[in-house]
Amino acid sequence: MSIGFDTRIMARAIQLAWRGRYSTHPNPRVGCVIVRDDTVVGEGWHERAGEAHAEVHALSQAGADARGATAYVTLEPCSHFGRTPPCARALIEAGVARVVVATTDPNPAVSGRGLRLLREAGIEVVEGVLAEEAAALNPGFMKRMRTGRPYVRVKMAASLDGRTAMASGESQWITGPQARQDVQRLRAMSDAILTGVGTVLSDDPSLTVRRAELGDIGEATDPARQPLRVIADRDARTPTSAKILRGGNVRLFCASDTLATTPAQDLAALGVSLSGVTWKDNGIDLGEALDVLGELGINDLLVEAGPTLAGTFINERLLDELWLYQAPVFLGSTGRPTAHLPLDSMADKVQWQVRDRRQVGADQRLILTLA
Amino acid sequence: MSIGFDTRIMARAIQLAWRGRYSTHPNPRVGCVIVRDDTVVGEGWHERAGEAHAEVHALSQAGADARGATAYVTLEPCSHFGRTPPCARALIEAGVARVVVATTDPNPAVSGRGLRLLREAGIEVVEGVLAEEAAALNPGFMKRMRTGRPYVRVKMAASLDGRTAMASGESQWITGPQARQDVQRLRAMSDAILTGVGTVLSDDPSLTVRRAELGDIGEATDPARQPLRVIADRDARTPTSAKILRGGNVRLFCASDTLATTPAQDLAALGVSLSGVTWKDNGIDLGEALDVLGELGINDLLVEAGPTLAGTFINERLLDELWLYQAPVFLGSTGRPTAHLPLDSMADKVQWQVRDRRQVGADQRLILTLA
Repeated sequence: MSIGFDTRIMARAIQLAWRGRYSTHPNPRVGCVIVRDDTVVGEGWHERAGEAHAEVHALSQAGADARGATAYVTLEPCSHFGRTPPCARALIEAGVARVVVATTDPNPAVSGRGLRLLREAGIEVVEGVLAEEAAALNPGFMKRMRTGRPYVRVKMAASLDGRTAMASGESQWITGPQARQDVQRLRAMSDAILTGVGTVLSDDPSLTVRRAELGDIGEATDPARQPLRVIADRDARTPTSAKILRGGNVRLFCASDTLATTPAQDLAALGVSLSGVTWKDNGIDLGEALDVLGELGINDLLVEAGPTLAGTFINERLLDELWLYQAPVFLGSTGRPTAHLPLDSMADKVQWQVRDRRQVGADQRLILTLA
Repeated sequence: MSIGFDTRIMARAIQLAWRGRYSTHPNPRVGCVIVRDDTVVGEGWHERAGEAHAEVHALSQAGADARGATAYVTLEPCSHFGRTPPCARALIEAGVARVVVATTDPNPAVSGRGLRLLREAGIEVVEGVLAEEAAALNPGFMKRMRTGRPYVRVKMAASLDGRTAMASGESQWITGPQARQDVQRLRAMSDAILTGVGTVLSDDPSLTVRRAELGDIGEATDPARQPLRVIADRDARTPTSAKILRGGNVRLFCASDTLATTPAQDLAALGVSLSGVTWKDNGIDLGEALDVLGELGINDLLVEAGPTLAGTFINERLLDELWLYQAPVFLGSTGRPTAHLPLDSMADKVQWQVRDRRQVGADQRLILTLA
């Protein structure tokens, strides 16, 4: 069997894993294909936390054909009893002869353990086939396992002259319906959405996934699931009537000495979770906030905030991607800036790498990373 | 002979006409192909004002083969004695049997006259083949002939957050070398470059075509030729030491009562031409300025100015194209705006059509027209 064949089958496993794009969190997206005598005998992908892993689905489909077969898995099979039994053991018990994996488990505590179990059972193990493509399935899971913090995407909608709203705050709508639908998908693949209390007070957004607006992928998502909404709100100024509180699953990041205050406790009584975090002169301690979100199992964090919070993420280099939706309009020189970033000289400029650029309706979507 | 054949040969004539891209002004770019018995027997294009027209070159190449042939011309052959004899007559005298033209002469005073001369001489005339593509050769000439005003391209270099300079005015360099080379080409195909005295005082630009930076197309331009540099300068504040004055070919647009002042006369003594135009509360009367430029034979005007003058062009809808070079950087919220445009509500936003978008080095070049 040539490397070319392994690559082709792994590509299929990655394709299957993407089917869990909107539903596996906090677990990673994983795909598995089982091949015997050059024929696919089983396929599976992880659909939802608490349910069967990709390997189990594929083995079940393969049945007795798994004996002597090759299993292709996008991520190292787990070696521990979690909510399901370890997949490495399932592969051994099924009599698989060879296992090809794309990436090892990013969790330093268990990385390599599943592969060792397989090798100890006499199974041939091949690593690193389409490793980069498979890692791209789970940037959030990978980063959280390695650093304890979620993968951070900051989303902005701006005009070609770099304005995100008029001076009055009016901003509906800068971008067109296709871009707004795209943002719905971005929300659906995020575990949490972070905003600031300023945005809550001025725009009163829901920050929910509206399934009716998702288009084709609507049915691939869990209809009941909403990402955790997180509000950076030092003094618990979020009104109890705010739309963002409806439907629950909201957490407030406030100053520690705000926790016991009446406004905070009023919000807690409505079911809002509270976290006391450190506040600095220029706002929330974002590093600490990201640590807390990591502990909460958040892989993918979407930031939909005003220029101040967005500016802090950029200034402190704490974002992984900036999703900039650019509308072919000018909002004028009195409009609100893209991000609050007071820079003095050209030497201070923020340099971006354009990772992706595409047309979304009349707008252009750029995915930028810090250079 | 099918329409398909005519289109193909006209495409070749248009291709030839483009060779005059940097050199024909104030004349239009014109190409000509002569075909006899399905074989090209002559080709020509207009290279430089005062020299032979495209038809003359092509007829000279065709020689006796022009008799009974078809001539393809991108623009209606001229019917008047200018600096050269009329081309319509040359075609008739050469015995051409058929003439295919893409566009008629845009000058309402003479439009159709050349075609009538040809028809009266018994020549078959076909009009409108690739008319749009041929008109795109000469937007400036076409517009000036129809309206008396040049075609206006406003050029800007801005960051993704819509800033054209730091608060201090520092702006070198927002865009990369490829974008700056592209601007050199844009200058080379322009008849005049307009800037404001504010830019002269703060940046002291030369606004010349630097042939060494043009790359491949350098030799296609007239090495001695520089576009007319025009400064909007109500009070003649341009210093006599300004770089823009070097090499001559500069015109100052000032208030009429500035014309006789010492600063204006000092500039005139250096060879600067003066035009007295009307000034309004928000700056120069741009409509009047464009009329004056049209009278001076300017087909293609490039505006390289600061946010104020650029904003006036946009606000008064007097530009034909905005060339926006966008660098993948943020310059920060304290930087200078793209254009001075005080807008109050989303209903006032300026809507652009993206006519062209392409990568130029690390930067993106957008050609925008008002929607």
